[in-house]
Amino acid sequence: MTQVGPEPATLPPVTGYTVGDYLLDRLAGAGIRHLFGVPGDFTLSFLDHVQAHPDIEWVGCANELGAGYAADGYARLHGLGALCTTFGVGELSAIAALAGSRAEHVPVVHVVGAPTTATQAAGRATHHTLGDGDFGHFARMTAEVAAAHATVTARGYADEIDRVIIEARDRRLPGYLVLPADVAAAPASPPAGSLPEHPGVTDAGVAADFRARLIERMTQASTVTLLADILVSRLGAEHHLHRVTALGVPHATLLWGRRVVDESAPAYLGSYLGASSDEHVRTAVEDADLLVMAGVQFTDLTSGFFSQRIDPARAVEIGGEAVSWDGRLFSPLAMTDALDIVAEVLIETGAGGRAGATAPTAPGAAAADEADSPLGQDALWREVADFLRPGDIVFADQGTSFYGMADHRLPGGVTFIGQPLWASIGYTLPAVLGAALAAPDRRPVLLIGDGAAQMTVAELGTLLRRGIPAVVVVVDNAGYTVERVIHGPNAAYNDIGRWDWVMLMRAMDATGSASGIRVATAAGLRAALSEARESSSLTLIQAVVPPQDVPPVLRTIAAAAAAANRPKS
Amino acid sequence: MTQVGPEPATLPPVTGYTVGDYLLDRLAGAGIRHLFGVPGDFTLSFLDHVQAHPDIEWVGCANELGAGYAADGYARLHGLGALCTTFGVGELSAIAALAGSRAEHVPVVHVVGAPTTATQAAGRATHHTLGDGDFGHFARMTAEVAAAHATVTARGYADEIDRVIIEARDRRLPGYLVLPADVAAAPASPPAGSLPEHPGVTDAGVAADFRARLIERMTQASTVTLLADILVSRLGAEHHLHRVTALGVPHATLLWGRRVVDESAPAYLGSYLGASSDEHVRTAVEDADLLVMAGVQFTDLTSGFFSQRIDPARAVEIGGEAVSWDGRLFSPLAMTDALDIVAEVLIETGAGGRAGATAPTAPGAAAADEADSPLGQDALWREVADFLRPGDIVFADQGTSFYGMADHRLPGGVTFIGQPLWASIGYTLPAVLGAALAAPDRRPVLLIGDGAAQMTVAELGTLLRRGIPAVVVVVDNAGYTVERVIHGPNAAYNDIGRWDWVMLMRAMDATGSASGIRVATAAGLRAALSEARESSSLTLIQAVVPPQDVPPVLRTIAAAAAAANRPKS
Repeated sequence: MTQVGPEPATLPPVTGYTVGDYLLDRLAGAGIRHLFGVPGDFTLSFLDHVQAHPDIEWVGCANELGAGYAADGYARLHGLGALCTTFGVGELSAIAALAGSRAEHVPVVHVVGAPTTATQAAGRATHHTLGDGDFGHFARMTAEVAAAHATVTARGYADEIDRVIIEARDRRLPGYLVLPADVAAAPASPPAGSLPEHPGVTDAGVAADFRARLIERMTQASTVTLLADILVSRLGAEHHLHRVTALGVPHATLLWGRRVVDESAPAYLGSYLGASSDEHVRTAVEDADLLVMAGVQFTDLTSGFFSQRIDPARAVEIGGEAVSWDGRLFSPLAMTDALDIVAEVLIETGAGGRAGATAPTAPGAAAADEADSPLGQDALWREVADFLRPGDIVFADQGTSFYGMADHRLPGGVTFIGQPLWASIGYTLPAVLGAALAAPDRRPVLLIGDGAAQMTVAELGTLLRRGIPAVVVVVDNAGYTVERVIHGPNAAYNDIGRWDWVMLMRAMDATGSASGIRVATAAGLRAALSEARESSSLTLIQAVVPPQDVPPVLRTIAAAAAAANRPKS
Repeated sequence: MTQVGPEPATLPPVTGYTVGDYLLDRLAGAGIRHLFGVPGDFTLSFLDHVQAHPDIEWVGCANELGAGYAADGYARLHGLGALCTTFGVGELSAIAALAGSRAEHVPVVHVVGAPTTATQAAGRATHHTLGDGDFGHFARMTAEVAAAHATVTARGYADEIDRVIIEARDRRLPGYLVLPADVAAAPASPPAGSLPEHPGVTDAGVAADFRARLIERMTQASTVTLLADILVSRLGAEHHLHRVTALGVPHATLLWGRRVVDESAPAYLGSYLGASSDEHVRTAVEDADLLVMAGVQFTDLTSGFFSQRIDPARAVEIGGEAVSWDGRLFSPLAMTDALDIVAEVLIETGAGGRAGATAPTAPGAAAADEADSPLGQDALWREVADFLRPGDIVFADQGTSFYGMADHRLPGGVTFIGQPLWASIGYTLPAVLGAALAAPDRRPVLLIGDGAAQMTVAELGTLLRRGIPAVVVVVDNAGYTVERVIHGPNAAYNDIGRWDWVMLMRAMDATGSASGIRVATAAGLRAALSEARESSSLTLIQAVVPPQDVPPVLRTIAAAAAAANRPKS
């Protein structure tokens, strides 16, 4: 073929301040230090500005779904995450991740490089579109999951960008910015000042009312229990919660919210799962004379399919900007302020001392004599729990890993992350990449089944490429065990191809510095974990367990899931 | 934790005829023999019915995007494809594939297992939802890309299912069916008869008018050229086109439509790419006294960014149900009928003989003396082209592979498939799985870059698990070369992690029957291809080429892409 047309082009070098620079400065001002994504021709010249930015590092991922999950994991540690993909093919490949961020209240800003405004106006069959001249399909699709969205323009860029970033940051939900290639390159002025802080919402009179009512009720309460959940973390109220828990008030969390408390604290009761809870947790929560609930959202998988029994008359429900209690709404009242009032009133009334919680049952003793028997789920999670140390970031995929860890208390300072509402298996593998970059001084530990890891395996390469010293435990049971226990224990559709995970990891490790170990006994697992403890590189442990072996909590939840999926008759 | 709640449940065995069975019978009646997907708890009991169905085989994929691309590849060979995923997390992970099927006119039916109607009515925070009680988000998102959609009900199932399958089949576009778990299990009656055939659309009077006008014009025309494109295939008009090309009329295709003609035919001119065409093709098309265009859709990547110069007064544009010619519309007139009229008139008028097309230039002679030099793109695609044989199904990913093959004629009977409008890199790897199952007697050949293959690598495991005897050529140039040539040739964002593809393939190959070979010279590639020719198992060839080496056609297209992305000044 003849070579004609424009000369092979390189866009002008990064000179002059552009709308793209403004966006990057705003992201950086909101704390972003890493931008995840995959390049595409509609983003390439913007990426030059990313590479030139002093505070933001580009993190190329293997695919866009991985980039979306990585940005989500980053945001869960860091408070805000961001990814950049190309129009159509790129953004839609990541949209399941953005939906997950929406479901799980994770603030992620998705920047999408789009065709130029001239190309869009021409309405022709452009690559990465449906070819029908309608360039709005994907923005309309994303509007269903993004809490704030804008197509950036050369004139209105400052307001558009600021609004989306502020909404994502303050509402802890995803934002979406479409950035046409010409707009990214258009001249702009740097921000005049910082983004405004989230204004306090609390009304002093409302706070005083709540305080007075709480003093009255706490004085009478024979027992007080605290139940906390994930929204405490999402709303930045963990330190305020810790003021309450430090007073010795008995407290539990839902499985979603394990990260918001220190499970090694004496007053920690355990996880509340509705009717599936351990009895001492269930009674402490459900029979408390006064139950303070902070940031609780009951979902099917964390409540034993809505089997919680909470008496609204005895429950103080602290939400993001209001407290709901016995038919009365205290609003506006920020969660942070409400928790501070709870702490003060506990001290004033001495109600924190009236604990009376049942002592937690001791975790199952390690069965040392089973060390050389074939590895089972029971020993697997016990060994993993023993291996964890303060400061670890633990991602447990939404299958046997998440539920297997439910029976084990975590050391103080461990951040435990699952995704029980969106419940996308495979999420955790890319998410650990984001979390590791957000908190490079902490040890990332990934617990994931083989079926889940196949979903997002490509990002294992990115973990290796970036030299993330993660400990990766792949539970090798040749299939979707979380599905097997719900339905079809022996059905072929729950089986997957069996991979050699150690060899696969080596194939992706150009540096040769990572380690891989296959284990099939508790003793083998313990030895592998010991090796991982000493390593400064990634260690992958392929832990072989029987396909039908299931952690007890998962069996309970799965039975409820199967019942929910049955037609009512 | 205590085990309470419902007993570990297994749904009742497959008994009685259900709505799910009706759906499967309708899919089977429309030709579906393979259903691609990933299980989820909202689909599991439906999957029992899939497994029990006599004519449909479940093809479990590693992830939903892979399943979507596989169903698309299946449909491109088979006429209709289908996939089944679970609500929210599953369907959104595949939505980029469905959008690609929409863009590229590929009929794929996407069945989504949803929570029961009771669960949806309760509006609670259910897993795989956004937790806001709105179960309609994902259907509204999919409505942007599906041409027909329905939520199946226990009462209206027959009409809903029939309508979506018929529309997908007849309009050659994606359909979407939401199947709540209880509706899938609801009692139903089997279809009373077959789905109605697509009714003929042609009006006899319109056909006669067109025929008369064509006779008049053909009699005068000094030269006649035919330009065909992908819609000929999508609309099932290939045999009708072949009646025309068999008459010796000089013909070209766009790169998108290579599969619709036999490139070994003497009257085949080559590929038309607008201004980027070889000169003899460009003049034969643009200067023809009469140009018959069949199913042509000019897109940016196939027209050298709309550099085609077609005189509407001399161009007969045959579309799906109408012919547009010199300001006049002949409608309704089916493409099949219009092509038959063209063939008849060519014979009657003898215009087929008045060809006068320039003889095509001979393909570049093989430089045998370069056999031991480091492999470059030039030798790579020449060797691959030499390797192809009639009957092969060739998937060329939308990067160096697609454009590298542009310079080479294909043997007759080769089906060459790319995705130049949606242009999602990585698409072809799962698509070849679908195509191989659709046409098990043909040899699948996959040509893909390393950056693209990382996008969808998990489905390499599915190819191996299913024992697909594909020849897989991974072009190893350590990055996104298609992006490098557009912008940022040395930018880090265009680099990827370097993998050992041979080792990776072995890690996924539980049977140990596949072969892997790394080559870095033309002689090595030729030997590897020879080995692949003899093998009845998958052969992966990792072909190492320099990162900056680019096929000439890609350089031309990329320059135009870079220009299109530049702001107008």
